[in-house]
Amino acid sequence: MSVRILNTAEAGFDAALSELLAFESAQDPAVDTAVAAIVEDVKVRGDAALVEYTARFDRFTPASATALELTRTELETAFRRIPDATRIALEQAADRVRRYHQHQLSSSWSYVEDDGTLLGQQVTALDRVGIYVPGGKAAYPSSVLMNAMPAKVAGVGEIIMVVPTPGGERNDLVLAAAYLAGVDRAFTVGGAQAVAALAHGTETIPAVDKITGPGNAYVAAAKRRVFGVVGIDMVAGPSEILVICDGSTPADWIAMDLFSQAEHDEIAQAILLCPDAAFIDEVRASIERLLPTMPRRDIIAASLANRGALIQVADLAEACDISNRIAPEHLELSVADPEAWLPQLRHAGAIFMGRFTSESLGDYCAGPNHVLPTSRTARFASPLGVYDFQKRSSLIRVSEAGAQTLGRIASPLAHGEGLIAHARSAEMRLHD
Amino acid sequence: MSVRILNTAEAGFDAALSELLAFESAQDPAVDTAVAAIVEDVKVRGDAALVEYTARFDRFTPASATALELTRTELETAFRRIPDATRIALEQAADRVRRYHQHQLSSSWSYVEDDGTLLGQQVTALDRVGIYVPGGKAAYPSSVLMNAMPAKVAGVGEIIMVVPTPGGERNDLVLAAAYLAGVDRAFTVGGAQAVAALAHGTETIPAVDKITGPGNAYVAAAKRRVFGVVGIDMVAGPSEILVICDGSTPADWIAMDLFSQAEHDEIAQAILLCPDAAFIDEVRASIERLLPTMPRRDIIAASLANRGALIQVADLAEACDISNRIAPEHLELSVADPEAWLPQLRHAGAIFMGRFTSESLGDYCAGPNHVLPTSRTARFASPLGVYDFQKRSSLIRVSEAGAQTLGRIASPLAHGEGLIAHARSAEMRLHD
Repeated sequence: MSVRILNTAEAGFDAALSELLAFESAQDPAVDTAVAAIVEDVKVRGDAALVEYTARFDRFTPASATALELTRTELETAFRRIPDATRIALEQAADRVRRYHQHQLSSSWSYVEDDGTLLGQQVTALDRVGIYVPGGKAAYPSSVLMNAMPAKVAGVGEIIMVVPTPGGERNDLVLAAAYLAGVDRAFTVGGAQAVAALAHGTETIPAVDKITGPGNAYVAAAKRRVFGVVGIDMVAGPSEILVICDGSTPADWIAMDLFSQAEHDEIAQAILLCPDAAFIDEVRASIERLLPTMPRRDIIAASLANRGALIQVADLAEACDISNRIAPEHLELSVADPEAWLPQLRHAGAIFMGRFTSESLGDYCAGPNHVLPTSRTARFASPLGVYDFQKRSSLIRVSEAGAQTLGRIASPLAHGEGLIAHARSAEMRLHD
Repeated sequence: MSVRILNTAEAGFDAALSELLAFESAQDPAVDTAVAAIVEDVKVRGDAALVEYTARFDRFTPASATALELTRTELETAFRRIPDATRIALEQAADRVRRYHQHQLSSSWSYVEDDGTLLGQQVTALDRVGIYVPGGKAAYPSSVLMNAMPAKVAGVGEIIMVVPTPGGERNDLVLAAAYLAGVDRAFTVGGAQAVAALAHGTETIPAVDKITGPGNAYVAAAKRRVFGVVGIDMVAGPSEILVICDGSTPADWIAMDLFSQAEHDEIAQAILLCPDAAFIDEVRASIERLLPTMPRRDIIAASLANRGALIQVADLAEACDISNRIAPEHLELSVADPEAWLPQLRHAGAIFMGRFTSESLGDYCAGPNHVLPTSRTARFASPLGVYDFQKRSSLIRVSEAGAQTLGRIASPLAHGEGLIAHARSAEMRLHD
């Protein structure tokens, strides 16, 4: 097992960093073509197509499309059946996630000008949203909470979950989380066919207004394709952690924090920035020692070898500069006074401050969402939040007096753009 | 000239409405292929490709890529040169748009729990954004204001404008609006090549973090393609207005309001919903009488014939239901007590309330943004706003005491998901 060691002071560091960060997310044309056919087929043939694709890709044949639905009782039964410790932890996590997200609620606002003209914005929840939850090997109940809770807090009218059940096998934890989060209806379908059903609706699955949640390449391609018909969240890339450490956190903690990202998959990225060469050596030793104890050691080793790095920086200020260049999904500030560095940090999905704030606490239960912008998109994108499940309508009520003022501004501008009906429409409201 | 008259009470109304609303926004594969090649070429060859495409598509050959830049002095000169009435109107519009958008600013927030754990969200402006402004025939200074002002209010570090100048011809109004809105740098390039330059950067044009603004099919396809590398705003469809009128607004006003949308292009959509058959007849007569006086009468006639309708409804409640189904970009509530109907209206880009609130006042100067969700996307999308130029980072600082509580929640959940490094990372922070 080897993780690369870099030093910002060495020639060629910039190129080495660029190479490390390069990740070709090019869409596979073959996947796109397959997905286009599936989406069109489900749009046209509805349930019949949905059942066929489920039989083909998930290797089980539902008696009918209605048999794809999980009843609320089935969800509740799963919730009662899971181990007590897990159920209690899920409930505590859900409470904390709910409380945090309530701070994100937007309200309608308006103001009235002197002449009686009112301007404002009406904020409303989406009517119905779809949540895609991966099934099979990577079944994450925490993702159910993180997608459903913000929608619930926003006041979305109906939350529809889809989750593939390869071979017909259901995951109790996922069903329990759906029950706890208040998912309204759930269907055991997945892949591009599930996304198509949510976007266009079938006889059994109602069309939604927005689809969120992670998935494989087919799911991602399907979401891109239906974008515009429905809203979607970001298409996620591989998960990333960047740890900035001053060298005073136990090296084992830092090594395990890097592992916790690397264990997701072979293309996940875990990077340490530290000004202390001796500490970097310690972390390297911790990695060597702890790796064999990890059940997912092969994935971790591959991830660290492929895309990991321990980077020696001149100082913490330089670490912040590099962090802004990386715009990481997860940023751990494992330093003595993390608040002092916040103003320097312009781009990150989530910032974990202080030695006790392991990323995994944020993944499950601190409160903030774990759906975060990846692949440098934190430059312009935000964590999944309540704001993703609310929308705004501008409100304009121009008074008779206001129409006199505004008409005289609009008219010359409309004439300047050659839009004479626009001008006339404003001018007709003028008194003379 | 004929505009279709429908009645919700007639058999087949639902189908007729569906047909009326149907708009195939399928992407043209030929456009996609051409755009893919242009984007890749600009990404690889930078300025050289940019100059070549400009020569080919805009029919003028800049001396070099640096000659594509408009200096701040050139923008200011245009601003000084335009007619006084237009300049004053632009300034008044900019003031009102700025004032409205200041209400949309989000601030960072955080809260501290009893055990010292801090949770919050840091809100920051984007570093650099690109604004695409169409050139040639449809040159709209108001669009420059509507795209640049929210970015400016958000505190974006640098605003880059691109505008094609076919045949080398510059539009003074567009340049003046750019000066007024505080655009930092401007380049006379357009099409897919301009979008590619903004997304990937060239020797001359700096890479941005997000691209907004309207454009033709090539621009739209290019924005879709670079989505993920940079953020983009919605890809806009044809413009739409839905007028709900109780029959007591002057019929000429309503006819002109419908024209003001129809004059944009032949596939724009203008629809009236009214419970009063006699008033619908009046509006039809107004349309016949006023149409010949319009410079863009051919476009208006085609738009109304293709996609327009005057629809008789049972009552205003039914009108609201239909409006929710349409989810219009612009919704005029030309009724006696517009506020009374607001709670019934779930989806609209902007709501224009009362007889004096013509849509054109909102387009230019009322204050709210005129970049609005089209093609039913108001079900999930919002007007362009300051929030599109701000982003959020979650803040988590778990105290030593908090790590004891949270670690005991995270650990069983991580074990439940089979992510043992996640569990260990939390457990290492536990005291025992």
